Amino acid sequence: MFVVIGERINTSRSAVQEAVANRDAGYVAEDVKQQAEAGAAYIDVNAGARIGHEAEDMRWLLEVIQGAVDLPLTLDSPDPAVLEMAYELARREPMINSISLETERWEQMAPFLEGKACSVIALCMDDTGLPADSDEIVSRAKLLSAGLEELGIPREKTFIDPLVQPISTDQTKGVMVLDALARMNRELPGIKSTCGLSNISYGLPKRKIINRHFLTLMMGAGLTSAIIDPLDVQIMASIRTSDMLLGNDEYCGDYLQAVRAGQIEG
Amino acid sequence: MFVVIGERINTSRSAVQEAVANRDAGYVAEDVKQQAEAGAAYIDVNAGARIGHEAEDMRWLLEVIQGAVDLPLTLDSPDPAVLEMAYELARREPMINSISLETERWEQMAPFLEGKACSVIALCMDDTGLPADSDEIVSRAKLLSAGLEELGIPREKTFIDPLVQPISTDQTKGVMVLDALARMNRELPGIKSTCGLSNISYGLPKRKIINRHFLTLMMGAGLTSAIIDPLDVQIMASIRTSDMLLGNDEYCGDYLQAVRAGQIEG
Repeated sequence: MFVVIGERINTSRSAVQEAVANRDAGYVAEDVKQQAEAGAAYIDVNAGARIGHEAEDMRWLLEVIQGAVDLPLTLDSPDPAVLEMAYELARREPMINSISLETERWEQMAPFLEGKACSVIALCMDDTGLPADSDEIVSRAKLLSAGLEELGIPREKTFIDPLVQPISTDQTKGVMVLDALARMNRELPGIKSTCGLSNISYGLPKRKIINRHFLTLMMGAGLTSAIIDPLDVQIMASIRTSDMLLGNDEYCGDYLQAVRAGQIEG
Repeated sequence: MFVVIGERINTSRSAVQEAVANRDAGYVAEDVKQQAEAGAAYIDVNAGARIGHEAEDMRWLLEVIQGAVDLPLTLDSPDPAVLEMAYELARREPMINSISLETERWEQMAPFLEGKACSVIALCMDDTGLPADSDEIVSRAKLLSAGLEELGIPREKTFIDPLVQPISTDQTKGVMVLDALARMNRELPGIKSTCGLSNISYGLPKRKIINRHFLTLMMGAGLTSAIIDPLDVQIMASIRTSDMLLGNDEYCGDYLQAVRAGQIEG
């Protein structure tokens, strides 16, 4: 089944920042309950926007979120000290967001990850920047997977993010990622994958429609998860419908339940 | 660019049957003009529903349609005599709908097709019935392609229809067709493909949503055309959006034009 990582609890969103600043536990609890009900499998938690407050904000958010829902968390921070604290507080095995092949990033994150029980989002970024073609995505995915295995993170817990780029400036950027995903799944059997979608439609109108269609195409190419807003009814409908069509919904049960709940709207 | 075959001119639709019975040329002309404007590349013409009248109805329809739009036609009949007459009347190179591997069908159609300048829709059906798995789809596609080449129809004009089956009774029926399409495109480079979509959602609610998502997945797997209603705004929006994401829309020009025309709605 496709894994939805709920992206809403991020202090760069003004409503969340305000709730965190005011320690408005009700707002946060209600938000994550809605995400859980809508089908999120993980709640991403990013407390990076209030400079100087990340550690305390993260600690407070974890307490509130874990008091409200029984979902594993995606701990989203560039700071290994914040991640260490959050990892200790996490009641279920978390996902770490993220590592990359950039030297500085790898050197910061590797000591934290070594021997930990967690999943990891691994970005196909290195010191030269974004990948230029599908070969580079696949070769970086292999480096990330091998490096993480050395740290004790198995391939089955490694979520490769191919880094979606806009098609408005280069119409091949969609196919580049789709081809890379399909090849990566053949050449690294068992590997997981994830992505944010919104870059694909940068600079174009009707972005949500583009994002939804790209998600369906990515699922067809073998994407196993995505970082999205689970309260976006249409993208969740796309995920459930595509997952069923891809054979991941026995007797179409999840789809039929979603229809009955009024969640399949187009 | 993805090829839309407009399915509306079919006398099994009651409004069309009535227009044909009354020789209401205005109705038919207006319908096909709208199909052309919406982006149809071919107009399918099926005059089979008024028993005993197929030849005269087909003749009248071709005259009206070709007076209204300058699109090639998909001549949709099981009767080689009707197809022969229609082929002679067609002003642009037509597509023939359809041949299959069923012995009787092949023997009826082969003499008609031999040496003709036309495209052909070739169904993956044989005397044992529908294909049971993706291997059978691919092997039948190869037999169809080879057989049609012997009759003088090149691979580039052969539109394989893998025959979409419902997922409500067997959740693997979607993946079966998607896998087969991808393999067929690797093993028969240059082959074309088409399908009707509606069988996929048979027995399930919210069928149009399922059909649209399946079309996007099929396009990702390499489908080159589909037989649809071009006046269904949402499915046409899906086609334009997916085609852009698959790199088939230079500078996103067709997509942007469709947005300006109010045709991208989700």
